[in-house]
Formats: sequence, C-alpha cells, structure tokens
Amino acid sequence: MFLSDDPLSGAALLARIDALAAISQDPGRLTRLYLTPEHRHANDLVAGWMRAAGMAVREDAAGNVVGRYEGRTPGLPALLLGSHLDTVRDAGRFDGMLGVVAAIAVVEALHRQGRRLDFAIEVIGFWEEEGARFQPSLIGSSAVAGTLACDPDAVRDADGVTLAEALRGFGLDPAALPRAARSQAEGLAYVELHIEQGPVLEAAEQPVGIVTAIAGATRSAVTVAGRAGHAGTVPMELRCDAMAAAAEMILAVEAVAAGAHGLVATVGQIAAEPGAINVIPGRVRFTVDLRAGDDALRAERMAALRRRLHAIATRRHVTMTIETLHDSPAAACDAGLMRGLAAAVRADGIVAPTLASGAGHDAMALAKLWPMAMLFVRCAGGISHHPAESVTAADAETGARVLLRFVETFTPGLSPSP
Amino acid sequence: MFLSDDPLSGAALLARIDALAAISQDPGRLTRLYLTPEHRHANDLVAGWMRAAGMAVREDAAGNVVGRYEGRTPGLPALLLGSHLDTVRDAGRFDGMLGVVAAIAVVEALHRQGRRLDFAIEVIGFWEEEGARFQPSLIGSSAVAGTLACDPDAVRDADGVTLAEALRGFGLDPAALPRAARSQAEGLAYVELHIEQGPVLEAAEQPVGIVTAIAGATRSAVTVAGRAGHAGTVPMELRCDAMAAAAEMILAVEAVAAGAHGLVATVGQIAAEPGAINVIPGRVRFTVDLRAGDDALRAERMAALRRRLHAIATRRHVTMTIETLHDSPAAACDAGLMRGLAAAVRADGIVAPTLASGAGHDAMALAKLWPMAMLFVRCAGGISHHPAESVTAADAETGARVLLRFVETFTPGLSPSP
Repeated sequence: MFLSDDPLSGAALLARIDALAAISQDPGRLTRLYLTPEHRHANDLVAGWMRAAGMAVREDAAGNVVGRYEGRTPGLPALLLGSHLDTVRDAGRFDGMLGVVAAIAVVEALHRQGRRLDFAIEVIGFWEEEGARFQPSLIGSSAVAGTLACDPDAVRDADGVTLAEALRGFGLDPAALPRAARSQAEGLAYVELHIEQGPVLEAAEQPVGIVTAIAGATRSAVTVAGRAGHAGTVPMELRCDAMAAAAEMILAVEAVAAGAHGLVATVGQIAAEPGAINVIPGRVRFTVDLRAGDDALRAERMAALRRRLHAIATRRHVTMTIETLHDSPAAACDAGLMRGLAAAVRADGIVAPTLASGAGHDAMALAKLWPMAMLFVRCAGGISHHPAESVTAADAETGARVLLRFVETFTPGLSPSP
Repeated sequence: MFLSDDPLSGAALLARIDALAAISQDPGRLTRLYLTPEHRHANDLVAGWMRAAGMAVREDAAGNVVGRYEGRTPGLPALLLGSHLDTVRDAGRFDGMLGVVAAIAVVEALHRQGRRLDFAIEVIGFWEEEGARFQPSLIGSSAVAGTLACDPDAVRDADGVTLAEALRGFGLDPAALPRAARSQAEGLAYVELHIEQGPVLEAAEQPVGIVTAIAGATRSAVTVAGRAGHAGTVPMELRCDAMAAAAEMILAVEAVAAGAHGLVATVGQIAAEPGAINVIPGRVRFTVDLRAGDDALRAERMAALRRRLHAIATRRHVTMTIETLHDSPAAACDAGLMRGLAAAVRADGIVAPTLASGAGHDAMALAKLWPMAMLFVRCAGGISHHPAESVTAADAETGARVLLRFVETFTPGLSPSP
C-alpha cells in the first residue's frame, strides 16, 4: 500500500481508515464487535501502527489497545488521546476510528521529528463504546475511568453469551477487569477527535468545530389514554381520541425545543392501540428524547413540556403519564482545553464553530477522571451509523493537523482550568 | 326458562339474546363464525323461534335462515326484516342478534293476534356480515341481493379453508350460491333494527334513532418521508422530521372533520421508521378513515384534507403521498320508510334523533334491490364489538314495539318513495 510520506496527510489517514474498515464480521458491510476475532485483528493492526509511531503498546484488562509515547523523561503523566475501534452493525468507517488514526498520526509526526514533550502521550483505542454487543455502552472507557458498574456474569449479548465468557474467550480475565482503571495522577487530560455525526459543521461550511459539552439527556415514555371507539359511529365531538391528543403533544415537543438554542427534542417511537384502521385509538404511547449541553436549560424545558402535555390532556379529556426512562447529566468540556483547541484552529485560519455534542462519546466516561475536550470533524450530510458515513481526506487532515498543533502547545500546568 | 307472555317484552327479547349468546366456539366468550357448528346450532334455535311465531322456515343457499309469515293471501310480496347472526371474535351479544330477535317478536305478536297484513313478512338471519371468518363482509346479505362477487374457491379463512370447502362442510353446494339471490319483485322493502354501536343516542338520552344513510367511506394510507437523523446531533432548524410533520397532519385530519356535521375522520394506525428512541423518524405512515352519510360532503372534505396535507408537507420540506385503500359510496335510507319509522316512534311519545350510520350493515347490500331503512337502538357507552356491549331490556322493548307499529302501518304502495 502506498502511503504519503506525511503521516498527517489525508491520503495516509484514509488509507488506515480503509484498512480498519476491511476488518468486519459481515461480508460487504462493516460490523466489528467487542471481544470478537475482528477485535483481535483490529487491535493487532492498530498496535502495529502505534509501534511504527514510536509507542510502547499494551492491551489493558478490558481489551482496549493502549500506545504510550514517553515525554522528555520516562514516566511523566500523559495527555490521553483516542476514540473507539468498535462499530455498530452495518456501520460507517469514520465513527471512532478517525479519532484513533488521527491520534496515532500526531504521535508519528512527533516521533519522526524526534520530538519529546514535557508530558507523555497515550493513544487509546477503546472498545464497546457503541454497546452494539454488550450493554451498557462505553464499557472500555468506563473501565479505564474506573466507573464500570456492570456484572460481567450478568450482562449477556443477543446470543446469551455473558460478558465474562466473552472476555475469557478473548484471553482476558473477567476478575481482572477493575485493573483497567487508571489513576488520576497518570493523566493530565483527555482529548478526542471524532466525526460530528450531525449537520452543523456542514451547514456552517467549516471543517472542524470545538465541542462545548456532551449533552445531557432525558428520555421519557409518554402514554396517552383516551377512549377507543368505532371509527364510523362516534361523532367528533364525543371522542376522546388518544391519537389526536398525542399528535398535539408531539407538536408541543417540537415547540419547546424550537424555542431553545442548544436543545433538541425527538419523538422517535410511537404506537397506537388497538391499532386498527377503523378504530379510534384508545391508547397511544410515544417516546421523547430531550438533550442539551446545559442541564439547567434541559430541566427547565422538560418542566415546560410536562406543563404543556398536561394542559393538552386536560383540555382533550384524556389521561397522560410521563415515565422517565433515562436521565444523564451533561459533561462539560474543559475551558482551558477548549481555548487550546481554539488557538490551534485559529492558527490554521479556520473559524471553528463551537457546538454541543448531542451524541455520547468515550470522553463522557473519561471526564470523571480528567479535564476533557473534543474536536469535531465535518461529515457529509450529518450521516452516521450508516455505510454512507463520509469524511473528506482534506477535512480528516485538517482535524489531525489541528490536533497536532494542540498537542505541541499543550501545557500541563494550564489544565484543569479553574 | 321463564318467558314473559308478551313476545315484545324486554325480558323475552333478552332471554333470546342470552340463549343465542350461549352458542359460541370459545368458552367464556362469544365467537360465532360463518359455516361452523355454531352456525348450525344458532340457525336451528332461530328456526324454532320462527316456527313458533307462525313462520315457514328455510335455509337459503348461503346459509341464511329465512322465516316467512304470509299475508292475507299466500305469495304476496314481502316486507323484509332482519339482521345478522354471526359475530366478531370475543363479541358483544346484541350486534346483529337484537334485530333478528326483535323481528321474530314482531311477527310473533301479529301471529298471536291472528293478524294477516296486505303483504308477507320475511325475517332473515344473515351470516358473515362481519367478515370475521371470510372476507369480504356482508356475504349473506350480498348473496340475497345477488351482488356477491367473490369466488368461493379462492376465498380462504385464516386456516386456509376455502369458502367452497366450508359451504360443503356445512351441507351447502358452492355452485348453488347464486340461488340465494332474490328477485326484486319478491320484496317491498328491507327494514333493519340494530344497536347503534355509537354514543349519539345515549348522549341525546333517547332509546331509538332513525338512520338517514349508511355512511360512505374513504380509507387512505398517508406516507410522510423526511430525513432520518441522530436525535442528539441534528439541530431543530436542520431537521426534516417525518414524525412532527405527521403530527401536524393528524391534527389536520381532525380539523377537516370537526368542521363538517355528519362526517367523521380517524387516524387508527401509525408507524414510524426506523422507530428508535434516539433517531429522528425518516418515514411515518398513518391511516385515515373518513366517513359521511353525504358522498358530496365526503369528497369535498377529502379534497380539502389533501390540500392541507400537501401544504404541511411543502412547508416542512417532507414528501407526502396518499394512497386510497378503499372507497365506498353512502347508501341512503328511503325517505318514505324513514317517515313511517318516524310516525311509529312519535306514537310512542319519543323524539327520535336522526343520524347516519358510520358502521356498515346488511341493509347496505339489500339497498341494491329494495328501499331500505334502519332503526337504531341505544347501547351503553357506544361500546360494540366487545363483551361489554349492552342494551337495556327497556330499550330493546321500545325498539321492538316501534318496529311492530311500523309494520302495522306499512303500506306497500307508499314505497319506494319518489
């Protein structure tokens, strides 16, 4: 394979993206799951790239691949870079992998120049960020953060295999899983490059953006109960139509979000009972996914939504219940790291937008231990978790160069910010 | 069993309703399907009641049970009364049966008085009105009207049994099915007593109502196509959310009906794709069931709905298609017969509302041959097709007495009306 001599070139980055994308359990599409033969194959490939970049490589107790590039003296605390190597089923090739490949290229560039910094650099390829084989998601990064709470003997994949069995099958010891946890003193900060998975940078016509926070999320199930009836025999004025009430509520979900910058709300699932073409629905259930980088804004808008939905239910003579399925706080990016990324971007003549990440990332888990920041790279149409996921070679290179400049100017003493 | 001496008494009517309700294929719930042993059992029971009421009884080529009470001279054209004896699964006990039982009681009252009229009376217990075993619905009444179009060798029940096989198993000859058709000259009119299956009479606090028409119906499937996306990463202003668009359209369905007296519109089914809590729906499909006694009104409102849905789709940058699944015209009730029913009701001191029937009935099929009218009897909560279906003894008796008065004053020459 021909690679440009410059490890940060778009061609070099995309060649490695393509090499990783060839490691899949499914012919013709990309599916690479945690603790599978493809996991082993991908770790081996990445480990080779890390060694070529001057790093010492190990696999941790959770199966993450970790490369370490020492600083001026061995054993200095590390700036951690990375992202994940697992994929969803029928995935795109950039989600996760671009961050690992870019981080390795940054180290490789330093290594070729023989540069050592005032800190070590560790590049981590995390596993099971997606939760595509085992739930919860973020298993690899939570293990590193020491916050993994699941019982390996209780968690099972779709085939009934436990996480413990899968770890053993991979050559790992489930009992040793806690040893993947790092101490706070070993690290200085965690910085992750990742594709945006949304359309904001494309709309702004900018190759990269600086993340302000990983959004907090409230997921709810709303159940509307009216009165089922014959679609032909009940006059409109005598109906308690759960579907019409739900429709008005879904527009209220949209309205509470439309008026709030940095907040999004989505109704992704809906079901009507009894669900016959000629029967007025007596019950409709739909989900609400509300996310914001600002927890106070999210709480305020969720309260406003509850008030609106209750008012609609009262006016329409239906009952309505809201069940909270999930509630997670936002993880704020570190202000000092964001300033460092902004300076690195400006040096490239780019006006990088700032934006919250609506999707979850390994950085959420690592924020428990270290100051954290993320650099987003533009992707085509905002499409992700789909084979059509696409990043241009130029944008990939821009992202990697910004990350290198950030690393070169990173000063351990400036983080964490006050 | 104790029966009141008066065949029109509520107690007598409900005792027969209960006796029929005991004939079910399912223990503990009422399910009586076409061409089953329960069909045979019910026909035998009803035939006994017909004979006791002075009627000559036969079973026609479609399995309908037909009782004939001659007029002053044998062979006069007949006023036809009736309803159906089949049920849906887990049915109520009044839907259909009340009309058959009331019609037999009317004849029994005349018979006990030894009265013969200027016309014959035929009471028909139809089968497969519901379409619960074989589609289409209205098989028995369509066979009598000579409009049954289905191929008995092609139509199958859920177990794969053809209609032809089921007819033979019941002792009938599929090839003879056309012989169930009656000639127009044999009949004068068809009048059906039926429970309302809706809440209008209960809301009006009246025991009976006079039907103006059996509603025509347009059933459509609406497909809204937007752009799927990550629920966390796509800002509200960059979305083409098929669910939010569908919600606005569902409210438009409600709005076009709310402004039109005698028209109802229902969204009974909805499905969102991909249907994940954290994904903006890219496609939503929902059904619209629009019914009105007035075909011109229905056409005008359907056109208005199409315009509104297209406007919503355009404004929201989604595409929208409307597929017509079913379109049937309204069957108007005969004005002369309605006047006769109104006079019979008034004589009882009742202010009977007039209302369109949103549900289909055997009268729709028979309207092809003869002038048709229907008398609705109040049912509790408008509930039907459900074990909770309920009619009071007093209301059943009022309905039967109105039907008797109508029959007593029916003048063959006055129908069909101009």
